[in-house]
Parts: sequence; C-alpha cells; structure tokens
Amino acid sequence: MSEGLLQSWINGQQAELISIQDRGFQYGDGCFETVRLCSNFPVLLPAHLERLRNSCQLLNIAVDFDLLQWEIKQLLQVDMSTDHVLKIMITRGIGGRGYKPDSNSGNSRILQLFDYNADSEKKKDGGVNVFLCKHRLSSSNTLAGIKHLNRLDQVLASQEIPAHYDEGICMDQEGHIVEGCKSNLILTVDGQLCTPDLSCCGVDGIMLNYLISNFAKQRIDIKRRKVSLENLAEAEEVFLCNSVYGVWPVIMMQANATALSWKPGAHTYSAIQFKNEIFGIHNKH
Amino acid sequence: MSEGLLQSWINGQQAELISIQDRGFQYGDGCFETVRLCSNFPVLLPAHLERLRNSCQLLNIAVDFDLLQWEIKQLLQVDMSTDHVLKIMITRGIGGRGYKPDSNSGNSRILQLFDYNADSEKKKDGGVNVFLCKHRLSSSNTLAGIKHLNRLDQVLASQEIPAHYDEGICMDQEGHIVEGCKSNLILTVDGQLCTPDLSCCGVDGIMLNYLISNFAKQRIDIKRRKVSLENLAEAEEVFLCNSVYGVWPVIMMQANATALSWKPGAHTYSAIQFKNEIFGIHNKH
Repeated sequence: MSEGLLQSWINGQQAELISIQDRGFQYGDGCFETVRLCSNFPVLLPAHLERLRNSCQLLNIAVDFDLLQWEIKQLLQVDMSTDHVLKIMITRGIGGRGYKPDSNSGNSRILQLFDYNADSEKKKDGGVNVFLCKHRLSSSNTLAGIKHLNRLDQVLASQEIPAHYDEGICMDQEGHIVEGCKSNLILTVDGQLCTPDLSCCGVDGIMLNYLISNFAKQRIDIKRRKVSLENLAEAEEVFLCNSVYGVWPVIMMQANATALSWKPGAHTYSAIQFKNEIFGIHNKH
Repeated sequence: MSEGLLQSWINGQQAELISIQDRGFQYGDGCFETVRLCSNFPVLLPAHLERLRNSCQLLNIAVDFDLLQWEIKQLLQVDMSTDHVLKIMITRGIGGRGYKPDSNSGNSRILQLFDYNADSEKKKDGGVNVFLCKHRLSSSNTLAGIKHLNRLDQVLASQEIPAHYDEGICMDQEGHIVEGCKSNLILTVDGQLCTPDLSCCGVDGIMLNYLISNFAKQRIDIKRRKVSLENLAEAEEVFLCNSVYGVWPVIMMQANATALSWKPGAHTYSAIQFKNEIFGIHNKH
C-alpha cells in the first residue's frame, strides 16, 4: 500500500477510531488480509477469506463470516473506476484484561479502502532492485504461515531498505532466505522452480499459492524447500509476488558488500502472464 | 492486570479512542511497561522508563521522555488511596502506510490506569499452581528481552491455562523453559539460584532485575542459563516474579500428564521480603 486511506469501516459502520482497549491495539491479537481491487473486483477474495478463516481459527477468534462478507459487499458498492486496495483486519475486540482472553470475547472487523496507483506497478514489470536485510524473522512453528497482526519483524526489516530499492529480503534465524518484507519469493535452482520453506516463519501468500496452482496446471512444480543465499546467487531467475502488485521480476539484490543480478526468463514471464489474467490486464510479452 | 480501566490518556489528553491508522494497531509497532502503583507511588518507575527508552531505541521510535514523564506525573496526581496499575504504551503513531515507517514518523503515548486488588495478591504469598503451556514462544535474537507490543505468543499460551491455575509456563522453540506468560521464573538447581537465559525469547523483567540486584547485595548470584524441564523437576525452590504482583512461590506445575511440586524455601522468602520492601509492605515471615 502506497496511497491514501479513502474509507474505513469498523464493525459495519464508517469509523476511523477504535478503543485502545481493543486487543488488536493492546497485543496485536488478530490477523489481516490485503486484497487488490481491479476496479470493483476483489482479486482472489475467496482465497483471502479462506486464509482469514484459518487464521481466526488458529487464534481462536470467533467471527461471523457471513456478516463480514456482507460488510465487504457494502464497501465494494462504492463506485470505483480505478484500482484500489482493501485491507481486512480481524481482532479479538475488547474483552479480557491481561493476555488471557475472556471465553466470550468477540471480535472487531476493520475494513480500509486505499487508493492504488496501478501505473507505478506497470513500471516494475521490467524488474526491481531488492536489499538483503540484516534483521532476521522470528521463528515459530505455530505462527509461521499466517498473516497475523504481530508485524514488528517486517517493520524492523523494512526500515533497513535504502531509498531506490523496492523491497527487502528477509532471512530466518539460521540465515535461510525466507521472503520479502511484503512478498513471497520464487526462484529457479538448476532449472527447478522453488520457493522458501515457510514452516518456521514467513507468510504463506495468496498470490504465491495462485501461482503455484497455475504452474501446476502446466505440470510445472514449485518446490517448497530451504533456500540459502548461495542458492539465490546461483539462481537463473528470481521473482517476487504479492496480492497487491502481483509479480515483480528481481534484477538486482544488494547482499552485504555484494550485488547479485538476474534476468527475467520464461518462468518469470509465465508468472506475469498468470498475474495479468487474474488482474484482468491484457498485456503482451 | 485483573481489574477495571479507570482512566486513559492519549498524548496528554484524556481519551480512549485511537485512530486505526496508528501503527500500534496496524502492526503492534511499539512497546509498553506495566507499573505497580502502591497508593500514588510508582514502584521502580526509573527502571521501567529506562527499559522503555531502550525498547524505543531498538525500534527506532523517537520519544520525548521529559514530556512522557510530565504526562505520567499529571496522571499520578489523581487521588489514590488504594493500589493501582499504570500501563504505559508507546507506538510509532500514524505515519507510513505499509511496513516501512516514514522517516519523520512520530509516536503515540498511551497511559492507562487500572484498579488493582492487592488483597487477592496477598493470598498467593503461600504459593500458586501453574500450567506448562504447549504453545512455544517465537525465537528472535533481536526482539528477545524487550517488552514490545507483539504479544500473540502470550495470548496463545495463556488461552491454554485451565481455570484455577494462576499462570502458564512457556518454553522456547527447542523446549527450554523460558518464563511465565506474564512473569519471569527463578529456581534453584543444586542450591544455585538461576533464571532462564533470555537471549532468544522472553521479557527481561524489571522485577527480575530488581531481585537479581538485591540478591547480589547479599552476595547471592542469580545465574542466567538454559533451563530444561528436568532442571525444573529437580529444583528445590521455584518462584515467579513480575512488576505488578511482585513474587509468587510456585508449589505445583501441571506438565503434560505429570504434576511437579515444590515448597517455598529460604530464597523464596528472601525474594518476598525484597518485594515487600519495594512495595512498602510490612509483613512478617
């Protein structure tokens, strides 16, 4: 998200203020999704809602998803001729002072609608520069994969990104490559597409899974595995993906004193093509 | 904290609502302290403020601590004949959409005053029952020790604590004993006082450090080391500490199918005595 907040709704009402007693504010006790809106069309919304449901289940937050979907539908009735981003946050709401939630704690549902500048996205189809961050992601078997509200790792890592770099690349506690600050990473190692294992940290991205299933339809497997910096240095192609911008080819990474570089290849162009299909963009490559 | 919110201040103004755009709400981008007030006296406030300053420095949040201290002083002018708890939260405030903060992002200072029932605390001087949680704390060399706002680990662990247990005990990703959900742990192993190493996870508690320095004055060293479940099973004494309740002797821990038990000994009584001194309680043991 790089543009301004247009509208926000809390529990179905237009509002921008929330109680400091909300457990989202006190503890980061919740989860979220960030959905690209191509005009009024929410891209991959069913997949986002499914992950949100799984996250809420893991955190044991009770949510009426019919109500949430109705609220999203209301918000999408705003006339949108340009692209936007919808952020959906669920917290455990107010209930329970101290870490242990009340057994009957509820939830807060927060929807935020942002402008999105699709033009600046198009410029990145040719490739982006990324920076290897020193801050390493926290390791947790339980929290890995889900998009919860404890995002200090991403805040600390992204503070390191110098100007003119588009994204930071994060490692786990042991120094394996995991993901971008706001994106997943795909690379080819000896011609085999792969993506870092997310069993200890990282977010299991919606766009990542969309690409995995689309490559699978072409009988191309994206293997989940441990990825080292050496793997990255030897990769033929490297690209990033997330739900908002889709796919970014990576052409350069500053890693400590070394600059690594890659060129987009056939797999990267396939990924961009899959992205264009789901975003409804009719481009030529 | 187990009692009601009496007052809350945001940036020096009595208020209870905060923008959903505050980075504390969006990302848990901040840190906090929980201070016991014995009548109007804030126990160990200088140590709390020093840790808060270190936490803000680590997170790179700029805060005017003179202003914060002035705001705390204003709040403490409320007439308090009974005990209370003051929670001080600092977030990065509004600024920067997306993980990367604006270079000129500010802060939000939130003060919350809660009732505290000191009578229910006294009952625990005889000992508490604790529960070994299955949820394991996230591991991070950077975030370990500081009291940041990413508290999902504590929320998930404390959800496991059955009724009639006073606290949950948490392990790290490798199964070492680290701390309680809201407290630090001290034990004796072969007569030697020790406390779990906090270099990968856990909060380096103010009351823990107060006890460490008071035992040191008696030439008794509290050694920081890795602690296993076996160490705990073989311990002669086990007690918990935090800034709000002080010291709790642990007399029983339910660990999977096994119940471990301990009796308070000389070190535990010394710790309670140190607590009573700083809380201004004149008790006999």
